[in-house]
Amino acid sequence: MNILVLGGDGFCGWPTALHLSAHGHEVTILDNLSRRAIDIELEASSLTPIRPMGTRLAAWRETTGKPIAFHNLDLARDYDRVLDLLKALRPDGIVHFAEQRAAPYSMKSSRHKRYTVDNNINATNNLLAAMVEARDATGCDPHLVHLGTMGVYGYGAHGAPIPEGYLPIRAQRADGEWAELEILHPASPGSVYHMTKVLDQHLFLYYGRNDRLRISDLHQGIVWGTQTAETKRDDRLINRFDYDGDYGTVLNRFLMQAAVGHPLTVHGTGGQTRAFIHIQDTVRCIDLALANPPAEGERVMIRNQMTETHRVRDLARMIARLTGARVDFVDNPRVEAAENELEVENRRFLDLGLDPVTLEDGLLTEVFEIARRYADRCDLSRIPCRSLWRTTPPAETLKMVAAGE
Amino acid sequence: MNILVLGGDGFCGWPTALHLSAHGHEVTILDNLSRRAIDIELEASSLTPIRPMGTRLAAWRETTGKPIAFHNLDLARDYDRVLDLLKALRPDGIVHFAEQRAAPYSMKSSRHKRYTVDNNINATNNLLAAMVEARDATGCDPHLVHLGTMGVYGYGAHGAPIPEGYLPIRAQRADGEWAELEILHPASPGSVYHMTKVLDQHLFLYYGRNDRLRISDLHQGIVWGTQTAETKRDDRLINRFDYDGDYGTVLNRFLMQAAVGHPLTVHGTGGQTRAFIHIQDTVRCIDLALANPPAEGERVMIRNQMTETHRVRDLARMIARLTGARVDFVDNPRVEAAENELEVENRRFLDLGLDPVTLEDGLLTEVFEIARRYADRCDLSRIPCRSLWRTTPPAETLKMVAAGE
Repeated sequence: MNILVLGGDGFCGWPTALHLSAHGHEVTILDNLSRRAIDIELEASSLTPIRPMGTRLAAWRETTGKPIAFHNLDLARDYDRVLDLLKALRPDGIVHFAEQRAAPYSMKSSRHKRYTVDNNINATNNLLAAMVEARDATGCDPHLVHLGTMGVYGYGAHGAPIPEGYLPIRAQRADGEWAELEILHPASPGSVYHMTKVLDQHLFLYYGRNDRLRISDLHQGIVWGTQTAETKRDDRLINRFDYDGDYGTVLNRFLMQAAVGHPLTVHGTGGQTRAFIHIQDTVRCIDLALANPPAEGERVMIRNQMTETHRVRDLARMIARLTGARVDFVDNPRVEAAENELEVENRRFLDLGLDPVTLEDGLLTEVFEIARRYADRCDLSRIPCRSLWRTTPPAETLKMVAAGE
Repeated sequence: MNILVLGGDGFCGWPTALHLSAHGHEVTILDNLSRRAIDIELEASSLTPIRPMGTRLAAWRETTGKPIAFHNLDLARDYDRVLDLLKALRPDGIVHFAEQRAAPYSMKSSRHKRYTVDNNINATNNLLAAMVEARDATGCDPHLVHLGTMGVYGYGAHGAPIPEGYLPIRAQRADGEWAELEILHPASPGSVYHMTKVLDQHLFLYYGRNDRLRISDLHQGIVWGTQTAETKRDDRLINRFDYDGDYGTVLNRFLMQAAVGHPLTVHGTGGQTRAFIHIQDTVRCIDLALANPPAEGERVMIRNQMTETHRVRDLARMIARLTGARVDFVDNPRVEAAENELEVENRRFLDLGLDPVTLEDGLLTEVFEIARRYADRCDLSRIPCRSLWRTTPPAETLKMVAAGE
């Protein structure tokens, strides 16, 4: 297939582009390199020495003989050039990673909230409008695969595992009988970033229904791991490893702290349960999703892209056990329950043949091949999360989340 | 109260600003005059001769002795100046009309889709972010009243009247029992414009929960009528009357066609049932909503702002009866059911004392005092709606709407 990867310079986008190229697809990357610009803003950088895009693409071609095209465009701003690219390329599939993807970054200030909403919503809406316009002009009708987040769901309010997108419910009719319906799972985003993915869902439902675009929305858990089969093939292909308080996930921050001999800092009681997936499984899932689009006219296909759940304090203990690090508990900057359960349905990808990498099996590799190998590049002052979620107390918040809104 | 009216030059905003001023509030209008710019783009104009903002405000001051301040600002673009205004004004209430509000306009082209999403979502998000930032700086904590639309609901999927925002449901727990929840009513927007109001809802839920902003979202039906008690006080205060295919509502287009002796053009069978409210009741509802905010920490207050429902063909017949006009049935450009039922709960405003103006009582005034009085200003070529909702057939659309998504 001819695949356009939007945001193909990022942590998920880059290994996805390589995986798809390695598996026989023609790949084109569109990216405005905004993630690298944010590194400059935050005075942070990937622990791993990622190379400039030109070097990356040359190394891939040298290693595999396969070319990947690259366009430095801003999906949220350069509509006409994106449209021209769609018309010229007529892709079979489009993978959309081109959004600001860090919850803490989205909460740093009013400017960061506004950037995240403006960038993410205009990126998605521009893409959908361009897909309709390009189809009208050329007949191309690509399947869109978008990276959503488990964060659209909250933690499931009604005492059952979180379903894959749609929730069967009953609602009372005027005659007193109960009608059976299936609705989009109620949204409960915990940050401005997560909220943008809720808005994306409604953009997809609308364009899916009105314009019959074929769309898959993949609600991903926290991605861990750094390398995939393809990024390992040459040092110049290495993937990002973020460990700063904005872009580093909880697991990466623990790994980094352990590698440099710092205590692991757990927010609150560490009773938050989160869903996880290895980056190698992320790229497999994208490939599986591309190969299994919804039929034309079918509603948006939603899949949960996660493979295991853990409490944060259990992760800390697991890493402490592997490395001998100490665990410290610090105040939680987020508005969230101190402890939560989380059960998630993920049959759709397992049924397509996904065979997950487990934390149990993969963590040691991360400790030795990434965190310790590049520990001399670490700036420890970057690890704490400095974004506060709020300025007023959230007394009613938890009740409302529990009410399942 | 000290009230800021965003979009106070528009069809609902202008009479609201005057009503609030007449009823003892200090009123400030913020508007970028975009609606007048769109008239230039569409080569259309209000049937009624609306005056420039300066003339309007001078006339109001002359007539009543009351000043209304005006700031020509773009809510979606001029964040810093909007923030400065909030900090200086420290309003008790904010009324938010500052969005592109025509469904057909939002569907004219890719550019119009993108303008509508970019403008409406950034306007709302900028406002919410500015409210949080201004509160942090000055302690002001205004109640936000936003004009939503009945169009967020679709037509109610489960055989009961559309509730006011939240729907009680049952969802099955893992143990087989049914949990009782109350969720935001499932969204089913019929145009890009309506979709932006769905996205607004999720912005409100998020900021209401995370930042404890007090927000009322009013889901309004189709507004009819032109004048209110205040706009009638001087010819220079006259309100807009749009009859073009983009901004004119179905009722205004019928009135205009009747006034100039053109057949009334009904889309499809005219079996679409719609909710209506008179502009005089709109301004009363805004005042009632301002006076009855949700408590701090309470969820977003949603009220349905409509007073009666009618089928489109029945409206056409009513106007035909009053005027002797003929009724013509033409192809429907929208993706929608040919016939739909619509029952809506609206106790919240009635319980606060709203005593509605009915179509039965008010239509004759519109025919004689507006449509016939200004008929010589009518450009008949502007009446047809030229926006097509889609380019591919919507076979599955109705099934999905019926499934209540």
